[in-house]
Amino acid sequence: MYRTHTCGELRIEHVGQEVTLAGWVAAVRDFGPLTFIDLRDRYGITQLVFDMQTNPELCESARRIGREWVIQARGKVRERSNKNPNRATGDIEIEVHQLSVLNPSKIPPFTIETHTDGGEELRMKYRYLDIRRDPVKEKLLFRARLAMETRLYLSSQGFVEIETPYLIKSTPEGARDFVVPSRLHPGQFYALPQSPQTFKQILMVAGMDKYFQIVKCFRDEDLRADRQPEFTQIDCEMSFVEREDVLQTFEGLIRHLYKSLLDIELGPFPRMTYEEAMTKYGTDKPDLRFDMVIHDISEHAKGKGFQVFDSAEIVAGLCVPQRANDFTNRIIKELTAWVQRPQIGAKGLVYIKWNADDTTKSSIGKFFDDETLRSWLAHMDARPGDIAFLLAGKKGETLRQLSELRLELAHRLELIPDDTVKPVWIVDFPLLEWDEDEQRFHAMHHPFTAPRDEDLPLLDSTDHSDHLRIKANAYDLVINGAEIGGGSIRIHDRTVQMKMFRLLGFSPEEVEAQFGFLLHAFEYGAPPHGGIAFGLDRLCAIMQNQKSIRDYIAFPKNNQGRDIMIDAPAPLEPHQLEELHLCIRNNAQD
Amino acid sequence: MYRTHTCGELRIEHVGQEVTLAGWVAAVRDFGPLTFIDLRDRYGITQLVFDMQTNPELCESARRIGREWVIQARGKVRERSNKNPNRATGDIEIEVHQLSVLNPSKIPPFTIETHTDGGEELRMKYRYLDIRRDPVKEKLLFRARLAMETRLYLSSQGFVEIETPYLIKSTPEGARDFVVPSRLHPGQFYALPQSPQTFKQILMVAGMDKYFQIVKCFRDEDLRADRQPEFTQIDCEMSFVEREDVLQTFEGLIRHLYKSLLDIELGPFPRMTYEEAMTKYGTDKPDLRFDMVIHDISEHAKGKGFQVFDSAEIVAGLCVPQRANDFTNRIIKELTAWVQRPQIGAKGLVYIKWNADDTTKSSIGKFFDDETLRSWLAHMDARPGDIAFLLAGKKGETLRQLSELRLELAHRLELIPDDTVKPVWIVDFPLLEWDEDEQRFHAMHHPFTAPRDEDLPLLDSTDHSDHLRIKANAYDLVINGAEIGGGSIRIHDRTVQMKMFRLLGFSPEEVEAQFGFLLHAFEYGAPPHGGIAFGLDRLCAIMQNQKSIRDYIAFPKNNQGRDIMIDAPAPLEPHQLEELHLCIRNNAQD
Repeated sequence: MYRTHTCGELRIEHVGQEVTLAGWVAAVRDFGPLTFIDLRDRYGITQLVFDMQTNPELCESARRIGREWVIQARGKVRERSNKNPNRATGDIEIEVHQLSVLNPSKIPPFTIETHTDGGEELRMKYRYLDIRRDPVKEKLLFRARLAMETRLYLSSQGFVEIETPYLIKSTPEGARDFVVPSRLHPGQFYALPQSPQTFKQILMVAGMDKYFQIVKCFRDEDLRADRQPEFTQIDCEMSFVEREDVLQTFEGLIRHLYKSLLDIELGPFPRMTYEEAMTKYGTDKPDLRFDMVIHDISEHAKGKGFQVFDSAEIVAGLCVPQRANDFTNRIIKELTAWVQRPQIGAKGLVYIKWNADDTTKSSIGKFFDDETLRSWLAHMDARPGDIAFLLAGKKGETLRQLSELRLELAHRLELIPDDTVKPVWIVDFPLLEWDEDEQRFHAMHHPFTAPRDEDLPLLDSTDHSDHLRIKANAYDLVINGAEIGGGSIRIHDRTVQMKMFRLLGFSPEEVEAQFGFLLHAFEYGAPPHGGIAFGLDRLCAIMQNQKSIRDYIAFPKNNQGRDIMIDAPAPLEPHQLEELHLCIRNNAQD
Repeated sequence: MYRTHTCGELRIEHVGQEVTLAGWVAAVRDFGPLTFIDLRDRYGITQLVFDMQTNPELCESARRIGREWVIQARGKVRERSNKNPNRATGDIEIEVHQLSVLNPSKIPPFTIETHTDGGEELRMKYRYLDIRRDPVKEKLLFRARLAMETRLYLSSQGFVEIETPYLIKSTPEGARDFVVPSRLHPGQFYALPQSPQTFKQILMVAGMDKYFQIVKCFRDEDLRADRQPEFTQIDCEMSFVEREDVLQTFEGLIRHLYKSLLDIELGPFPRMTYEEAMTKYGTDKPDLRFDMVIHDISEHAKGKGFQVFDSAEIVAGLCVPQRANDFTNRIIKELTAWVQRPQIGAKGLVYIKWNADDTTKSSIGKFFDDETLRSWLAHMDARPGDIAFLLAGKKGETLRQLSELRLELAHRLELIPDDTVKPVWIVDFPLLEWDEDEQRFHAMHHPFTAPRDEDLPLLDSTDHSDHLRIKANAYDLVINGAEIGGGSIRIHDRTVQMKMFRLLGFSPEEVEAQFGFLLHAFEYGAPPHGGIAFGLDRLCAIMQNQKSIRDYIAFPKNNQGRDIMIDAPAPLEPHQLEELHLCIRNNAQD
């Protein structure tokens, strides 16, 4: 062992002890008679001191040491005259009498500090230096603790972690698979799993009763910011359960994680139907840390001769409480431009100010009388001092725009308390979505999601509008406006599953080729079952109030799906392609 | 919830309670007035009873139920008149008054019993039925407990579980990679990791100090029995350590696993050099549960005019203690045929019997006088009643053949105690192996393994025989003759690493292309470090005295690398190939 102690563990009670430390040089400070080195490892920083008077040679060699060199120092622990209360080891220092350089270092391309001068790309290329920085290191440690606590909790509840295979079969449904050519079976491919969905259902048929796995999943998507081609899921499934059992179990998990990792006690999680979420927040991921719900005032605003409203499917808005004064003409103009950006796509923005002095002011004051405006304000639960914003248009679009506006206003006005945690279960999702382009249904969750029992008869209808009314026995867990998990009670009846596949436009041959093994399994005693999966990285980020998941991943890919540290992906050697019976298409040029 | 209790938890103290159970029908027994159903779930079996007299209708419907149907039964717990002491729930039964069929089942293609009539292929195709069988279920549960205990132990020792990426870069060195074509980067590929080796070393450079991960690894090998293309490793690495620190740490892990899972206390593990293992056991994986070491008697047996011995590089043998009588001429003839099989490849087998009456008998009695034979027996520590077997030939081959013979004899004579655990660390492996075909060196472990400090100067020699003398700072853990883990102290000095790559015949360009990122990392303060990796499946099998790892894997591949349950690998859709910029070579026909 190169050390007797870590750089984080020495305290005042160790004074007088002879110790050996090893670590990285965080800083060298030369004060003439004394030279100090801050020695860093994963556990902390300890101050080394070299004395020009008692040991000039050693002190000289300490001065020649550079940042991030790896050194080993032997010496005696002594009390510091100048204590550093911000550091756990701040009461002591090491009077060094022996020093070895274990490995020198080039000058790092960015500073290894909490606030670094390194840009994103540089930090990724030198990820091994980036991880030495506290913010990244602490996030990796947090993630490891979260994974461990998850395992402990689920094990205590009787769940068994079972590994499912990574080399599986491609299913063209849904997102794109990453595939793996087989050398031994020319022209054939494995696929990397987008999730262990079918395997966990098979495990329920196999009687494993309660399964979980912290598992990598793969999705070959066109990358967006903060999406990774490989990502980690807490994947769970249980048998003989109904929706409420699943919600209770995993509410328990999330509560345990908040308590054990952050010492936060969460109360029971409220439930909200998809319909209520869409109506009140314009999204199925409502951020409940602040109010400002959406009010539909169509019936009061339409049919009064104002063309914009009359031609709209919906007129709806929200109220910013007690901030009417903040919204000057300039700011309202700017906000109008913001909602008109293509990402939001609104045509315009209507406001109604209800001033503290009880006067009103509105961008549509010339089209409506004061009484009408005041009646709308009343319908929106406004009070004097509030300002209301209205949008009009197609229902789905307008609600989405209001949802974006709601979040934007909350950010601008700093209405979101940092230390609040607002979980909510969203339930009763529609089972199916109609795809206008392809003129077919898609499963809103996935094709294995069960309809609610009461909606089962609608599966047999031949009317698409009946199908759209079917509610899924599905649920999402949303915390602070982010979806951190979702799942459903599954179909365990082969006949119902076949009906579902038919609705989704699969031919019996396609079903047999892609899902045959699951349907066959259903013929041999499939129990009622359901489950859920959480995004581990997302959960970490939400729990720590972080915007990006990237620093919870030790070696993330960039937005182009590249690992720029190792430079992957990369071309293969010709003999590798040959062994795999593959050739590259001619038009495949970067 | 479909049940109030599992099928494994009801006891005599529950008598009188109203309960609901759900599970699979293991057996229906119709005794006229009474019908019994054994109801099974993961936790056990509970007997349900239906009474023809009190509820004929219900009893009739119970009789119509088949094996492996999923049912729900409500009833009252009562004491059994006829207790079953072999079953945890054997004191009670459920007097059922309500019964629902949750899902019927086809007749399973094999019996769901500890000893099944299903063949290997059938069991794999219907793996969901196979897992319902106790032997498979219990192995999956054991594996999960082993993984959990591993995590608990390593966490308690300060190790942090960190996930490394699965989509990495192909390195043509070593076994073949599975590769993953990139759609976004035409003509480029990711590779699936054969191990997280370079990433864990990068994590040491990153200062994470103690890393572990239970992780899937991938190797595209021509499959042998009991090799899986994807397999699970307990992968570990630590900084500022020497060999002894690593051995102590992971001896601690293995001891913890034996204690916590099997209640077996293991003493300190002995260490044996590679050379001693090869000399005494003919293998670097010696089974120490029995003796019969190999004795080299070349100096006593050669140069005496017997051509077979005189032309041999080595004459060596082993003694079977006190079993001379068991070896009749017929058995010796049969054993001779066994060593002459191509898998073993010996030319012949020489025996010397030292009978209990002190007479001797030997297949080479006519070439050597009795005194000479007796002197060899003495050199082999034989006693009257023993029989010695000798082989002669090239050194490496002969030792390997003796190693096989030793195991074969032990199995035939049942010399291996079932309940003994004999771990041993094998150390001081050669760093390099000479490949006659390719006329180049290979790294015996991998190119990152450090030489022993004292052998470092030999790296600079230009003499191949010096290079072959270099010992690696590497170690394998062998238990009961099976390698369950291996590792090494790594090279952390860029100059030494470059020398190693040069010895292995890499050009500087190849090194830069394949390992550049690691060598660059070594320029920024790499600490001394070392690690180890264990085969999780193998460890499970060894701990439970099982020959095959396959039942520790929920969904294993067969010997051709196929998952026959889901039928993977499989051809892709043409549009998938197109998106990936790939075509299949014409000669790629099955």
